[in-house]
Amino acid sequence: MDKDLSMYNIRTDLALEAKEIAAQGMQSPEIPGLWSETESADGITVTRMEIQNEQAASQIGKMVGHYVTLEVPDLRQGDTELQDRVATSMAKEFEAFLRRIGITASSSVLVVGLGNGSVTPDALGPIVVENIMVTRHFFELMPDQVNPGYRPVSAVAPGVLGTTGIESSDIVQGIVEKAKPDLIIAVDALAAKSLERVNTTIQIADTGIHPGSGIGNKRKGLTKEILGVPCIAIGVPTVLYASTIVNNTMDLVFEHMKKHTDNTAPMFGAFGTMEETERLQLVREVLHPLGHDLLVTPKEIDKFIEDIGNIIASGLNAALHEAVNTDNVAAYTH
Amino acid sequence: MDKDLSMYNIRTDLALEAKEIAAQGMQSPEIPGLWSETESADGITVTRMEIQNEQAASQIGKMVGHYVTLEVPDLRQGDTELQDRVATSMAKEFEAFLRRIGITASSSVLVVGLGNGSVTPDALGPIVVENIMVTRHFFELMPDQVNPGYRPVSAVAPGVLGTTGIESSDIVQGIVEKAKPDLIIAVDALAAKSLERVNTTIQIADTGIHPGSGIGNKRKGLTKEILGVPCIAIGVPTVLYASTIVNNTMDLVFEHMKKHTDNTAPMFGAFGTMEETERLQLVREVLHPLGHDLLVTPKEIDKFIEDIGNIIASGLNAALHEAVNTDNVAAYTH
Amino acid sequence: MDKDLSMYNIRTDLALEAKEIAAQGMQSPEIPGLWSETESADGITVTRMEIQNEQAASQIGKMVGHYVTLEVPDLRQGDTELQDRVATSMAKEFEAFLRRIGITASSSVLVVGLGNGSVTPDALGPIVVENIMVTRHFFELMPDQVNPGYRPVSAVAPGVLGTTGIESSDIVQGIVEKAKPDLIIAVDALAAKSLERVNTTIQIADTGIHPGSGIGNKRKGLTKEILGVPCIAIGVPTVLYASTIVNNTMDLVFEHMKKHTDNTAPMFGAFGTMEETERLQLVREVLHPLGHDLLVTPKEIDKFIEDIGNIIASGLNAALHEAVNTDNVAAYTH
Amino acid sequence: MDKDLSMYNIRTDLALEAKEIAAQGMQSPEIPGLWSETESADGITVTRMEIQNEQAASQIGKMVGHYVTLEVPDLRQGDTELQDRVATSMAKEFEAFLRRIGITASSSVLVVGLGNGSVTPDALGPIVVENIMVTRHFFELMPDQVNPGYRPVSAVAPGVLGTTGIESSDIVQGIVEKAKPDLIIAVDALAAKSLERVNTTIQIADTGIHPGSGIGNKRKGLTKEILGVPCIAIGVPTVLYASTIVNNTMDLVFEHMKKHTDNTAPMFGAFGTMEETERLQLVREVLHPLGHDLLVTPKEIDKFIEDIGNIIASGLNAALHEAVNTDNVAAYTH
Repeated sequence: MDKDLSMYNIRTDLALEAKEIAAQGMQSPEIPGLWSETESADGITVTRMEIQNEQAASQIGKMVGHYVTLEVPDLRQGDTELQDRVATSMAKEFEAFLRRIGITASSSVLVVGLGNGSVTPDALGPIVVENIMVTRHFFELMPDQVNPGYRPVSAVAPGVLGTTGIESSDIVQGIVEKAKPDLIIAVDALAAKSLERVNTTIQIADTGIHPGSGIGNKRKGLTKEILGVPCIAIGVPTVLYASTIVNNTMDLVFEHMKKHTDNTAPMFGAFGTMEETERLQLVREVLHPLGHDLLVTPKEIDKFIEDIGNIIASGLNAALHEAVNTDNVAAYTH
Repeated sequence: MDKDLSMYNIRTDLALEAKEIAAQGMQSPEIPGLWSETESADGITVTRMEIQNEQAASQIGKMVGHYVTLEVPDLRQGDTELQDRVATSMAKEFEAFLRRIGITASSSVLVVGLGNGSVTPDALGPIVVENIMVTRHFFELMPDQVNPGYRPVSAVAPGVLGTTGIESSDIVQGIVEKAKPDLIIAVDALAAKSLERVNTTIQIADTGIHPGSGIGNKRKGLTKEILGVPCIAIGVPTVLYASTIVNNTMDLVFEHMKKHTDNTAPMFGAFGTMEETERLQLVREVLHPLGHDLLVTPKEIDKFIEDIGNIIASGLNAALHEAVNTDNVAAYTH
Repeated sequence: MDKDLSMYNIRTDLALEAKEIAAQGMQSPEIPGLWSETESADGITVTRMEIQNEQAASQIGKMVGHYVTLEVPDLRQGDTELQDRVATSMAKEFEAFLRRIGITASSSVLVVGLGNGSVTPDALGPIVVENIMVTRHFFELMPDQVNPGYRPVSAVAPGVLGTTGIESSDIVQGIVEKAKPDLIIAVDALAAKSLERVNTTIQIADTGIHPGSGIGNKRKGLTKEILGVPCIAIGVPTVLYASTIVNNTMDLVFEHMKKHTDNTAPMFGAFGTMEETERLQLVREVLHPLGHDLLVTPKEIDKFIEDIGNIIASGLNAALHEAVNTDNVAAYTH
Repeated sequence: MDKDLSMYNIRTDLALEAKEIAAQGMQSPEIPGLWSETESADGITVTRMEIQNEQAASQIGKMVGHYVTLEVPDLRQGDTELQDRVATSMAKEFEAFLRRIGITASSSVLVVGLGNGSVTPDALGPIVVENIMVTRHFFELMPDQVNPGYRPVSAVAPGVLGTTGIESSDIVQGIVEKAKPDLIIAVDALAAKSLERVNTTIQIADTGIHPGSGIGNKRKGLTKEILGVPCIAIGVPTVLYASTIVNNTMDLVFEHMKKHTDNTAPMFGAFGTMEETERLQLVREVLHPLGHDLLVTPKEIDKFIEDIGNIIASGLNAALHEAVNTDNVAAYTH
């Protein structure tokens, strides 16, 4: 029997995780209306997924659309060659999105960097915006002098509700009405469901950004319905809840013990056989009233966020401008 | 005979300087349609000026409106008590603007921090925005729970054309249409006409911001005509041209020598008796082709801009929220 | 039966926690040779502890000496009045250390800010150093003109081994030999044993800093034996291990369930009755090989570290200079 | 007739400029005991100079030793390819210094970044230090595992007197005694004598750093005599005095006018024929009492200092480690 995802409160921003959670409650691993393929090479695993109809969407708890996930477990090691390969791979996947949506070489694009630039783990969007090759003003001011191989690109970091007093989606809407781009790319930091995801996973989705996802309540939604133009969302998990760490780790502990013993009941009691959701619920009930269910981030977040921000900006610059390819892409970010 | 200011290319963003320049070319120091008064106390000189009609406006080269200038020659010394007095004084002057425009205690205000946050001498606007007490979202989300003594205040730093690809005035317009404030306050760094002005002078004007003023061409204009609501501009000179330093210094040298000799002609030849405009023109003709007519800023700009940004934010917080007074104002900035 | 602490691998930098851990394994709560008193007021709990002899030291696993802990559970709320009270309280406690060591009003003091200024949760030391009122050079260059009420204070941030290539204790030793202070104050970020400690607790100890404590291996030791002058250490927990979060949370879960049921065995099995050390060991065995036993820090670390750095600098400025008191202390930090 | 340089108060940190100034007062352009050669290619002019004896030293006002200057007028344009060429060129010149001094491939090197990291135009040294490939700790902790092609390199930013309370030369001396390097490389920001020099010129000298040079009085001297090991100084002019701008510009104006007229006397009077020193003196006499003889820096200093800091770090990394060459050098800085 299928379960409705609304029962789960293990909400995740990653379609890949949502699919795994949905699959847990089901007898058959097949979800009709869901297509996906996975490819691994050189330390990067790319999963392309399509949620093809509303039934699959409701089972998985994600909108109908295309989702691509790049998983790079070693991304936190600071290996610059791996980082370049990830940028190249991201550019290639992103170009497929552009083609599918029908964005031509001359279409105008607005990159929106969501999040708070003064809160390091939330600064992904603003960092990407800083490193985007912005060209729209050249097309406006001296259209005859722009070299071939570029398109009009603009980029803004609208800030967050707590520091501007205005919903960032309202700010973006206002700007879209003036700048009239053909496509929005919204970059944002996400909350992870497991430690291994933090700063190692990039998700691209053509569904835009929906209310209620992401870290905190900073987003009222950036979708084609609201903005009038398509919106591709790029997200990276950079934080996770203390309760998520506990839940996720206990899972690993249970799995670990199962390798050593047939019966883990004496070891962990009822706790060990609880549904993941129930267990998470219990942990939250304890931590929340104490004010201890903090969102946390790795100690080295300053470096991680800088690195992954540069990767995404490099990937976007290469994907958006034909004249910028995956060899010279690094020169355009700092 | 009156001179049209368009002859002068000694453009200045300060009405006080524009008036002085205009007065130089005139037989009578009186400009009809111009009212002004000056008050000095505790190291702060406040000049209140009103350009009352178009004739005065064209003579001075500034729009009809009210201008207040705070001159604080010792502001670069880092004296925190003086800084507090300037914030208090600014708040008082600003409140007079609010009353005159008819902004009531419940009117909504949007503070716009113009300029590039990554270019220190141009970061005044973004720094002020960071330190503004933002409250609009509380009024939107839980209007019943907002304490008395506050008004809805929002704040944005729209970035500059070179990094967003969009005119900042277009961005502001888009936001204004969504957030619907009753008043805009636009904060920006200016170019000074003399070294003594740099980081020592604050100008408040109810004329908004007009194309062509300020450092560089980042501003298409923020005026009541464009935005539909009044716009008060707050500016501080933070940079000046190398040519301006030369011209301004040579003036000081000539004045200095006049104290010692009746006839400075043998000393400085024709150069000494040139019109200021001509002399500046000559200096520019020499420096410009070499790429040497740089905009420069004092070595200690990081500290200066932080200090003056805090002063303005403190002054605005006190002027905008009745519950914030000039004693507790410092607590709201960092 | 007493247990030797070396059995525990629940290492903690806080004497308060070390004492609690030691007490867990004992029949009597009294540890001979340990004196302590606790005082709570206005949201601040101050615990003064003295480890009086080697026997108590070995039981607790901390050096003979004085330890003062300020616990301020609400410190993460950003309440500026509470922050001022903590600075005042810290200054008072610190002055008692100065008196006990025999530091007179004219003794020279060197503040050492340990840690990496580019890694936010490790930047506590460098941030404190930036806000210390440095005066030593005035005493060296113009001793006659220094106002009464000040002592010679110098301050350095020696960096960390990974970025300098030199042990920070070697750097400090070299500087001490040249600057010849009478006292060293070493400020450092610590690893916490529980989430509630992170950025809410300040420890002052007259034992200096010992090899092996703190985050990472950046410290070879700053002690009177090595430096030739006394060293007071000030530490704040800013990070904790993922495994610690799990262990600490499971404790809270067990306690929580004990309130609801007499017998938690069916609920948690053997896991629930494990020694804390064993349980932590198990969690680490699972997380470590996966590279998931990360050190993490709260999402809002940028703000927390800035706030607590200012509190400590304010407290030290007031304690070190008679002319700076707890009313005007805030003016000396930014 | 030769002039003694002590007469000039047009002090400059650049040997190249000192030589030009000395040459102005002389009938023959030849200074005995001075050797120099100049080479230009690809937008970079390299001048190699040797002051061979005390007589030449006293004429020029610089110490006996080798000086290399890289002049790159277009360095402020932000051209990344030019920046790479400058790094490569600097590495090549620097290697010649290493060979001449007899620094072998295994000799240990300490890079000292002088200046104040919080004052942008003075932050060159700290920025270079941040980007140096530090390896000394690997040689200390696991000498057997270091790959060939590296030498022990350490790096410190000692801060400035105003923020540490200790002379930076005292701090460096203390560190040298502990870390025992075979060579010191001291990087510092300088004051320029002309606008065209600011952020476009790099000087390398094997004379160390002498009291009284540089911006402000932050340097007591870093020389072989004081430190016991050789010291190579690398400097870049990043600021200049307002009075220097005036003097330098008036020179350009005079030269400009000479192209148009035979007799500039009517144009500029006595002022036009003054010795440069006298004229500068006059300008200073006027500006100084007003507090207007500020040190200024270009508006874009944040970007300039970042770029030139990366160039110097890249050049040093390539010159110091054989395994790092001028192709992969950029990967080691950010």
